[in-house]
This record gives sequence, structure tokens and C-alpha cells, in this order.
Amino acid sequence: MRSVSIIGAGCTKFGERWDDSLRDLVVETGIMALEDANVSGEEIDGLYVGNMSGGQFVSQEHIGALISDCAGLSRLHVPSTRVEAACASGGLALRQGVLAVASGYSDVVIAAGVEKMTDVTGGVAADALAAAADREWECFFGATFPALYAMIARLHIHRYGTTREQLAAVAVKNHQNGCNNPISQYQMEITIDDVLRSPLVADPLRVLDCSPITDGAAAVVLAPTEMARKFSDGPIRILAAAQASDTLALHDRRDITTLDATVSASRKAFDMSGIEVKDVDLAEVHDAFTIGEIVAIEDLGFVEKGEGGRAVIEGVTAIGGDIPVNTSGGLKACGHPVGATGIKQAYEMVLQLRGEAGKRQVEGAEVGLTHNVAGAAGRR
Amino acid sequence: MRSVSIIGAGCTKFGERWDDSLRDLVVETGIMALEDANVSGEEIDGLYVGNMSGGQFVSQEHIGALISDCAGLSRLHVPSTRVEAACASGGLALRQGVLAVASGYSDVVIAAGVEKMTDVTGGVAADALAAAADREWECFFGATFPALYAMIARLHIHRYGTTREQLAAVAVKNHQNGCNNPISQYQMEITIDDVLRSPLVADPLRVLDCSPITDGAAAVVLAPTEMARKFSDGPIRILAAAQASDTLALHDRRDITTLDATVSASRKAFDMSGIEVKDVDLAEVHDAFTIGEIVAIEDLGFVEKGEGGRAVIEGVTAIGGDIPVNTSGGLKACGHPVGATGIKQAYEMVLQLRGEAGKRQVEGAEVGLTHNVAGAAGRR
Repeated sequence: MRSVSIIGAGCTKFGERWDDSLRDLVVETGIMALEDANVSGEEIDGLYVGNMSGGQFVSQEHIGALISDCAGLSRLHVPSTRVEAACASGGLALRQGVLAVASGYSDVVIAAGVEKMTDVTGGVAADALAAAADREWECFFGATFPALYAMIARLHIHRYGTTREQLAAVAVKNHQNGCNNPISQYQMEITIDDVLRSPLVADPLRVLDCSPITDGAAAVVLAPTEMARKFSDGPIRILAAAQASDTLALHDRRDITTLDATVSASRKAFDMSGIEVKDVDLAEVHDAFTIGEIVAIEDLGFVEKGEGGRAVIEGVTAIGGDIPVNTSGGLKACGHPVGATGIKQAYEMVLQLRGEAGKRQVEGAEVGLTHNVAGAAGRR
Repeated sequence: MRSVSIIGAGCTKFGERWDDSLRDLVVETGIMALEDANVSGEEIDGLYVGNMSGGQFVSQEHIGALISDCAGLSRLHVPSTRVEAACASGGLALRQGVLAVASGYSDVVIAAGVEKMTDVTGGVAADALAAAADREWECFFGATFPALYAMIARLHIHRYGTTREQLAAVAVKNHQNGCNNPISQYQMEITIDDVLRSPLVADPLRVLDCSPITDGAAAVVLAPTEMARKFSDGPIRILAAAQASDTLALHDRRDITTLDATVSASRKAFDMSGIEVKDVDLAEVHDAFTIGEIVAIEDLGFVEKGEGGRAVIEGVTAIGGDIPVNTSGGLKACGHPVGATGIKQAYEMVLQLRGEAGKRQVEGAEVGLTHNVAGAAGRR
């Protein structure tokens, strides 16, 4: 199995991109990533794209070929594959790219993610996103994602004494970080009070507990580690890329305050990489809802189960804290263009591990972890 | 790079499966494949599923996790990934499974494909399928797939003298073969006259030139070749799995009577495998429309460009001919549950190479090739 490194990365501005189509966003980020990697189109021999629902959002499937075509790679007949795993589509596109290089089937691979979500009106987006839950056993009875995460939050509060303020502290921190990230959708600080007074979505979650609807795209370029220095002065070695699944419906889970898939994937990633939790300098985790970040840092082992809320409000996960989490601003402040998020997390990690994250830089960062339903660990 | 073999295969009955949901179909075929492979669920450490448009057909995305869940694999947290490439979703799911095993990331992988298409009414299905074409530059102006393939047929007729009867002969042969395949949707012979008198869809293509709307699922189980004999007495070695892309829109192509992606992928597959066209004993090719089979056998190198129509009507591609094509009945007679087709092609090849294809058996078959937009070559 060949070792794989990231040799370049790019990310569009996330937000409401009214003037740009799905293909515009992908071309924009693809060019950024190729320039960053010092790679020309002719050198690409594989392309993966994470996209949750081009069919429902912009009536376009076959996104792999579309993107290869838009990027001018069609004449080269580059193998182009779309990967879908709802909010983890980007993370899985990255992992498929890693497999393609690790297997020797490809050498230089682009792993991209994209979602164009603002071309539909509100109800359509909510319904499209609900297609990631169990349509027959959850959505049919009215449960959408805010409701499902609200149930997780309620039990976490009940069982561990997590407070409303602790949930809000996740959003406050991530907005702070997002203010220092030029790609983030929301460039504004918020207070705990702002979160608590924002409109209720699904009790106890309020608008400012939820990640928004966003357009955006991100891309990274992968190569075998042995070839990486040919392209890049600062390649980022991928120590492990692990993936796990769980029941689709929440009601079938052993315990809804733990995502067993996170526990399983992170265990595999740590085993593969030979590093331990304490070696990780920073992490990007999946905060589609504030409770999601609290559960994630517990399940990844950064804090004990039930201690997540306290850790956040005490600054453990702030930049400068023991384990900075979501320095990019997370899904909360960057926005959550579903298929792009997993790749944007990798993009943030590339900047951090290169020491190029500006005001949000974590000093001396050497090992990072990204968590996009499945987990992945990277080291420069 | 590890060599990969197919150790088991299963396929549901294709057709209008009113009583079965997407998940029912997948579970049915998954059990068939696991039993055929003598593998238990605990041994599976990767799952790929090809599905074009669960979002548009049954309002369900996140099909990888869904299938892992339905199959009872969720407790094992098996990495489960959906792959989408329109009509080639199944073929790419198979190739991703091959990469996962070849890379060493997984040992025993299920590659499945599924589509549940009959839960929507006519117009919705046509529009969902049109999402595989270029929405902005083709569908917006009314071009759906029959129209696009009709243009290919028109130029092929004009340039090479291909006749209406030769197109019809593809459907006649595939229906003949389908009559001997218990999974095929249409168990009836048709004549050239039947095709010529069937309703016009997009001149010159008629209803009986087109593959139908179909529900169905298929699955194969993959393992490293060195482990394959542990499970199966008749493992099928995959010599190569190659993939290529082209422009999404037909009007951007160099020449619409050739699919350059087929030429590119088959060249790669032959290079990887070390075999030549003349070594191939039979092929399953992508006959979504009759003209598609004619173009495919030319682009794969079985006959000269322009000779495809003549070859079919002269029986070169019949069982017993020089190069039997679509012994399963193809997409035309089996039906075309989009995401399942690529895996069904592999299923047919497994039966043929094992000598278990009954009345449609190709005597002495040792090397087969399947073509599902991209191309793959298999040998026992």
C-alpha cells in the first residue's frame, strides 16, 4: 500500500453564490488546487467529487463526468467518479482518492467536493437534505435533521447535564474563528445571548445552533508520498483515512449520545497511523449542529463522554486551548455546502499544517484530524 | 497492487417490482451474493453501491449507509460508499471495490448496484434520467437520451450505411438471449418486423430499440486473488478494471459515432491485462439503445468501425458466433435498472466463465469483457 500525500488545495468563498453555477464553483476551486500543487491538467489521472444531491438541487447527476468536462480534462479521458454519502460525501471522495493512489491505479488525483444549494427555495432544500435520513422510517413521519439532532441534544442534556449555554458556546467559538477565515460564509461574531435568543428550530436547537444552506466547492490534489516533493515544498502526508457506517435511522442506535461510526472510524484511523489522541494538535469536526461538535470531541476521545459541553465553554477547544477544534469556523460559520464540507476540512488542515492559516494559525501544528462522519488523520 | 477476484455473485429478477422497495431489492441480491461466495456478513469489510438517482426516484440519498443498515452490517460499522456515474454507476461501484481490495484497505468487499425506477410516473423518470446528460446545454433545450442516441444513429447510418434492419437485429438477438435468462424483464422473442413497426420514439429509434424502465439489483463479492480459493471453487480473476470519461454534452465530441471514452478505457484495460481483443470469448456491452451496441462493438475493437451493424445481422455476435455479445439479453431484454446494470453485466460474466449460464452458455468461455461506459475485462 503506497503512502499518499496532499500536494495542493483550494477552496472557493462559501456563501450564497447567486452568480455561479455548480460547474462554475468546481472550476474555480479546481484551478486553485492545481495552481497550489504546481500540477498541470495533463498530469491528473483520476478525479473524485463528493456531491450529495445535484439531482435534487440542480437536476444534474453524472457530476463526475460533468466536472472532468468543465475542467477541460475530458480530452484526456480522466476517470471521474462521483461519491455520495450525504454530509460526508466530501470526506469519502477524499478517501476514494486515497485508495486510488494507494492501490497504484492512479498517481495524481483530484478529490473535490461541491454543492450548489441556493437555487431552490426553502422547503425543497429541507426535503432534499432529509433524503440523507431514513426516508421510510424517519422523514415520512416528519423528522428532519434539526429534529433528529434535537433528540440527541435532549438526551445529552438529560444524561450529562450539558447546558444550553454550552451548546451556544460552540457557535460562539466557531463564529470567532470564522471571522479570521476569508472563505467563511459568516464573518461576524455572535454572543451566547444571541444564540439563546435566536428563533427556535427544534427544541432545544435554535437557528444559531444550525449550520446554514450554502454554495461552495473545495479541492485537494493527491499524489504518492514518494512523488510529492516533486510538486510541493510542503506536502501533507495522510497517515490514515478510515470510514465507518451505522444504522441510518437514529431509533435503531445503541445509544444516540454517541456516534458509534465516529468511534469505530477514529479507532481504525489511530491504529493505521500509529498515533494517539494526545498526538493530535488540532481537529476539524462535523458541527452541522452545535450538539454535533460536542458529541464528536467526546467520541474522538479528546474529552471524556459527557465532558464535551464543559470543555467548549472553558476554552479547551479554542485556538490556544489544549485541542483547537474547527479553527476554520466549522460548518457553523463557514457554511455547509454538503458535498464540499469534507474537502474544506482537509483544505483547512493543509493551511494549518503548512503554517499558512494567518490569524487562526495553531502554533506548531504538526498533526491534524478531520472528522466528516468518518474520520481521517493527517500529518505533515 | 493486489490481484482481485470475484468470489460470488447474485442478481434479482429484473422488472416491475411493485411489491419491493429499493432496500428490499438490495437485501435480496446481497444475500444471494453472500451465499454464493460462502461469506458471512462478519467477513465483509467494505461495501460499494452503484445508484444513479435514489434522490429523484425514491427521495432517498445516503444509499451506502442505507444498504449497510438493511443488510445488517451497521453493527459492524462497515465502510459503505455510494458511487454515481449515471448508467455506469454499477460499473464504477465494481471498480471502486477493486481499488479498495487492490490497495489493501479492504479484503472482502461487496460491490452492488440498485435502481428502483417504477415508483414514479413516466415524465418524472424521463426527467430524472435526463439528469445524466448536460442539463444546461442539452436537456434545457429538450434533448433527452433517446434524442441524443438518435443523432448518433443518424450519423452512423449516413456515414457507414448502417441500416434500420441492422439496428433492429440487435434487439432481436438480445430478446432471444433474454428468453434464456431467468432474471430478464422480457421473456419474449421479437422479430425485425416487430421492431420496425413499434412506435417511433426519436427518429430513427423506435420503442423496441430502447431499453426499458426497470427495478432491480445485483451484487458481486470481491476478495484478493490469493484468498479467493478459501471461499470459492470458481473465483473469477479481474485482469483489469479501467475507466475513462468524455465531454458530457454530445455536441462537444470529436466524433459522435465513436465513444472515445470506450476506446480509451478498453485500451487501458487491454494494456493492464496483457490480453488482446482476439483473446476475448464474449462481452456484455452497454445497449441502452440498439445503436449503442453497434458503436460499442466497433469501439472495443471486435469489428472495424462501420461494420457493427453488418456483424450483428450476420450473427457474428450471436451465441455461437465469433464474439457473442450480450448473452444475458443486455439492457434491452434484461431491462436497465440504471445503477444495477454494470453489476448485472459482471454477474452474467461470472455465470458464463463458470460454465453455469444454462441454455445461453458460450462453450469454453475463459475471458470475458464487460462494458458499462467504462470498460472492464475479466478472466476466470
